[in-house]
Amino acid sequence: MTSKSSGRTRLGVGLVGLGRLGRVYARDLASRIPETRLVAVADPVAEAPGAYTEPEALLVDPRVEAVVIASPTHTHRGLVVAAAERRRPTFCEKPPALALGETLAMKEAVERTGVFFQMGFMRRFDAGYAAAKRRVEEGAIGTPVVFKSTSRDPHRTTLEYADPRSSGGMILDMGIHDFDLARWFMGEVRAVQAMAGTLAYPELKTVGDLDNAIVSLRFADGRLGIVDLSRNGVYGYDISTELLGTGGTLRIGYLRETPLVVLTKNSVAHDTVPYFMERFAGAYTAQLQDFAVNVLEGRPAPITIDDGIAALRIAVAAHRAHETGQPVEVASVTG
Amino acid sequence: MTSKSSGRTRLGVGLVGLGRLGRVYARDLASRIPETRLVAVADPVAEAPGAYTEPEALLVDPRVEAVVIASPTHTHRGLVVAAAERRRPTFCEKPPALALGETLAMKEAVERTGVFFQMGFMRRFDAGYAAAKRRVEEGAIGTPVVFKSTSRDPHRTTLEYADPRSSGGMILDMGIHDFDLARWFMGEVRAVQAMAGTLAYPELKTVGDLDNAIVSLRFADGRLGIVDLSRNGVYGYDISTELLGTGGTLRIGYLRETPLVVLTKNSVAHDTVPYFMERFAGAYTAQLQDFAVNVLEGRPAPITIDDGIAALRIAVAAHRAHETGQPVEVASVTG
Amino acid sequence: MTSKSSGRTRLGVGLVGLGRLGRVYARDLASRIPETRLVAVADPVAEAPGAYTEPEALLVDPRVEAVVIASPTHTHRGLVVAAAERRRPTFCEKPPALALGETLAMKEAVERTGVFFQMGFMRRFDAGYAAAKRRVEEGAIGTPVVFKSTSRDPHRTTLEYADPRSSGGMILDMGIHDFDLARWFMGEVRAVQAMAGTLAYPELKTVGDLDNAIVSLRFADGRLGIVDLSRNGVYGYDISTELLGTGGTLRIGYLRETPLVVLTKNSVAHDTVPYFMERFAGAYTAQLQDFAVNVLEGRPAPITIDDGIAALRIAVAAHRAHETGQPVEVASVTG
Amino acid sequence: MTSKSSGRTRLGVGLVGLGRLGRVYARDLASRIPETRLVAVADPVAEAPGAYTEPEALLVDPRVEAVVIASPTHTHRGLVVAAAERRRPTFCEKPPALALGETLAMKEAVERTGVFFQMGFMRRFDAGYAAAKRRVEEGAIGTPVVFKSTSRDPHRTTLEYADPRSSGGMILDMGIHDFDLARWFMGEVRAVQAMAGTLAYPELKTVGDLDNAIVSLRFADGRLGIVDLSRNGVYGYDISTELLGTGGTLRIGYLRETPLVVLTKNSVAHDTVPYFMERFAGAYTAQLQDFAVNVLEGRPAPITIDDGIAALRIAVAAHRAHETGQPVEVASVTG
Repeated sequence: MTSKSSGRTRLGVGLVGLGRLGRVYARDLASRIPETRLVAVADPVAEAPGAYTEPEALLVDPRVEAVVIASPTHTHRGLVVAAAERRRPTFCEKPPALALGETLAMKEAVERTGVFFQMGFMRRFDAGYAAAKRRVEEGAIGTPVVFKSTSRDPHRTTLEYADPRSSGGMILDMGIHDFDLARWFMGEVRAVQAMAGTLAYPELKTVGDLDNAIVSLRFADGRLGIVDLSRNGVYGYDISTELLGTGGTLRIGYLRETPLVVLTKNSVAHDTVPYFMERFAGAYTAQLQDFAVNVLEGRPAPITIDDGIAALRIAVAAHRAHETGQPVEVASVTG
Repeated sequence: MTSKSSGRTRLGVGLVGLGRLGRVYARDLASRIPETRLVAVADPVAEAPGAYTEPEALLVDPRVEAVVIASPTHTHRGLVVAAAERRRPTFCEKPPALALGETLAMKEAVERTGVFFQMGFMRRFDAGYAAAKRRVEEGAIGTPVVFKSTSRDPHRTTLEYADPRSSGGMILDMGIHDFDLARWFMGEVRAVQAMAGTLAYPELKTVGDLDNAIVSLRFADGRLGIVDLSRNGVYGYDISTELLGTGGTLRIGYLRETPLVVLTKNSVAHDTVPYFMERFAGAYTAQLQDFAVNVLEGRPAPITIDDGIAALRIAVAAHRAHETGQPVEVASVTG
Repeated sequence: MTSKSSGRTRLGVGLVGLGRLGRVYARDLASRIPETRLVAVADPVAEAPGAYTEPEALLVDPRVEAVVIASPTHTHRGLVVAAAERRRPTFCEKPPALALGETLAMKEAVERTGVFFQMGFMRRFDAGYAAAKRRVEEGAIGTPVVFKSTSRDPHRTTLEYADPRSSGGMILDMGIHDFDLARWFMGEVRAVQAMAGTLAYPELKTVGDLDNAIVSLRFADGRLGIVDLSRNGVYGYDISTELLGTGGTLRIGYLRETPLVVLTKNSVAHDTVPYFMERFAGAYTAQLQDFAVNVLEGRPAPITIDDGIAALRIAVAAHRAHETGQPVEVASVTG
Repeated sequence: MTSKSSGRTRLGVGLVGLGRLGRVYARDLASRIPETRLVAVADPVAEAPGAYTEPEALLVDPRVEAVVIASPTHTHRGLVVAAAERRRPTFCEKPPALALGETLAMKEAVERTGVFFQMGFMRRFDAGYAAAKRRVEEGAIGTPVVFKSTSRDPHRTTLEYADPRSSGGMILDMGIHDFDLARWFMGEVRAVQAMAGTLAYPELKTVGDLDNAIVSLRFADGRLGIVDLSRNGVYGYDISTELLGTGGTLRIGYLRETPLVVLTKNSVAHDTVPYFMERFAGAYTAQLQDFAVNVLEGRPAPITIDDGIAALRIAVAAHRAHETGQPVEVASVTG
């Protein structure tokens, strides 16, 4: 392997974070994406040979032409600002931060330096969601008037991971994908209502997290949305979205994993998608490929820091609506 | 045909109302239900031979051993009270009334006279909903923690029908079925939030009705629910309910009507259920059969006037939540 | 009930045979079909009040304007000939007879007397099959080139019923429906090949019957077909047909019975259609209604004795192909 | 990248053939399979940089520790024999050859040299087929008594490719996969019947090929099978197999490609799998990975030259059955 493939330059990418998702990105950058080379990785604990333990060292490595940030959320601000200062085109995994305040420094650095910055919301790169977007734009369902989205994990995360101090809490951590889709398909959200509870895994209360939440959305033009989130989709990993339109409806999502159906006495059964890597492997790869092509060809980022901030703001509003029991205007979320 | 079939007495039923649903009930009572005879019908405008134009005349007909009320909602109070005074076992189609106040006289008459009274919520008699109830009771999904229910009509009703003065408005007219299911599966509802709009058929605004609504439910024990309603399920009649449990999930509902699938270039397609009669024909019949058997065998009614009132109260609360934009405690709805 | 309904004359029908299917027809004729009255029944052993024990007595009953024959197959010839002699419009359940020779007398009597005669193949009246027929005629799949049809019972019949001396054997008893569909959709069959065995229920060998069979069809114009039959569709009653065309494909059939889906750990499951009455109840009713309307309005029968004979001839050819292990030309089956 | 990954030696693989499938294998060997390195490729016309034009040159390249043969079928014999002479562990794509005679030299060379040889039948490595195999072995469906398998291409191949002189004809070229599955699930095939025709694409007659075929199988122990093949699965690429058992049934296969469902007036539609690479990409990769692991760890090949020969023999028997119109014993196929 060289940095030339069919005469095309490959982008030298440095990857920060070798957790569950980081390892997937490492494989994609190294071998699945023709436009990239994985030239450096940084992780404080990973035992990858040649890995930097300090991300700052990675940022000054001259082979690193662009940076992919897949480290824990609380590190995003510092890394994005540092990468911007060094003018390294940056891809940052969602969410941008846990609190709105943190994102301001990120936005300031990106805008001041003019560095290329792309936010990670991989669902937009899933074949189903992408096809749905095209269909909506083609008018296949008239005007979508209700957005419905469901995200369910097949089991609860560890208490350590669920701790809102690191994850931001379920509404933010899980819901931010749905809030981004809501904006992508329907435009800005004006107000939210929410109800939530710790109903299936009482031990989550020890860290103050939820396991089920319902968030209602009012879009700026009056249209409606619902997002429901659950940690007890015990049957499988279930991500589904519906766009109810005036002329038709789109449904994105599926549950069946392998091509086997078992028929026994009065029963027809199939399996389910285990978890996010099985469901979105292709989308993760396509997302980083898109990042690389955008950097190489000088195209603007399709998902910006402002998109990350807007989705985060909805999540924060939803969390407040849950805590207060009152409707919350998204515009009122300023910090 | 006689009133004896296999030595069993058939219940002589008088039917009030020969509208869309009343005609279905007439056929069921006359020929589909072995336990009933249709002995009299009353409708002010129907041209059925031998029909009474005044329901009062039907109530004094000595052949009428029991009464089925399928006339417009605003007539329910008077008819239920009159039937109770005459000690006629009564089946009354949902909703019991348009306002809570009206139901008090009905409840008073039923309780004072001790007459048999059964409320009509046919979904409880659908094979899918009934099987789901059994599965929940058997523990198949652990504890259900989230209730989700969707009701969609394939097109808007006439403006005349949609007029909230006669229908009660979409949240009551369509939603009361879902609110009854919510109570049946999960117990009492403590509070609601709602968002709604007239998004697909602006002409409905002329009569003050909605075409899309989202209602969030908080059950008395803290569990959660969502009901979403739409008049623009233009693809077909879509009634679906999900019970998300700690150990599994149940989904009730289907869209496919006939056993034909059409495969053309890159497409696999099937048809949809046109409307409520195709979807719930069996449930309507089973419901009236259950009524007749209960009367003949002296069993208590499985769905009472209190069930009707409780579902109505949730609907009224949801409507107020929509109008005020604020959460509403169901207990606060007293009139 | 009278013989007038909405001013329309109802056809007085006499029903011969009150077995499993006969009882369904009795209910349909009595109450489900507006165009018919059930005026007499005949069955040697049924305990229905007022039933004739001798079908001949039924045929001379002056109320009997038309006859429905649902008695065992070996009685068909005598009954059809007797009904023809009395000029009673006749509906005869499939198969017309167990051997080709028997059908000649039936055909002769029908043609000589000119009596109305309709053969029973209820699948043609199923909503799915009927819709498929329309789609083919509309050109939705171009030219169908392969016909595939599967019939599976959920369990084996009793040994008494399975006995080829009364049932004709599985290839005839089960397959004749598929052979009729083959002709209906594709035209005449020129030759067959077959393989069969008693693979799941060895006790069927004691009466000489099979439990699985595969029949390949060559249509007169060279197109192809497969019919596979099984008594061990233990998961449910499975009747499905596929028309593979040059421009698309149609699939008729379904397995899901009730609108409930159960999701448990890594499994999505639904129930199945139990048996033929659940699957084809509507088709049986529609078939007899069609018969009544044809008689009342003087229309020709859509399915004739010749259709019955042609399907029987394919079945006999298939049985011989199985027995000899050699291809059989359908034209060679003359008795 | 080096030949060491996590301390494990990667197998240096030389790939012969860079056609449609060869290019997929090249990508898999180079980057998708951790146990392999792609060290050399050979193709007479491919413009890959550094590719050998003569496969013999590849075989003597000292980096080539194992060989993957994906070149046209008529080249298999020579390549397999040459690779065996050089003691290079060999993977050979199906079919082994176009005529049984050719395979004898292959078998002789493999057995004489004792070289590792693995036959390519990728369906055995598909998640659905592999899971079905486990389920059968666990007894999930009792004894499978009927094997049904369907292979359909979404469009005809080029006339050049379809030419039986290079492809072996449709029954061999398409059906050999199904015949291999038949043996894998059910054991040896004793006899076949067949019917076939050129029904959808008359232009195929110019090269003497078919576009639809039906093959009935009798297994050695009397059980039954059907394989139907078509080039006009115009709706999509459809590979499906059913195992009908005494206690249940398994179905392998699916048609839906992306997670999008489109609901419009009275229609629910989804897309289909376009072609074999979309359907079996994972199986192709898993197959070569299995080959590499077997070679590296000294395990025997799960699919041998005898498996290739046995499937070819069934295909040849089926082709003769089609040509003669007579049943053919598989044992009678000796050349």
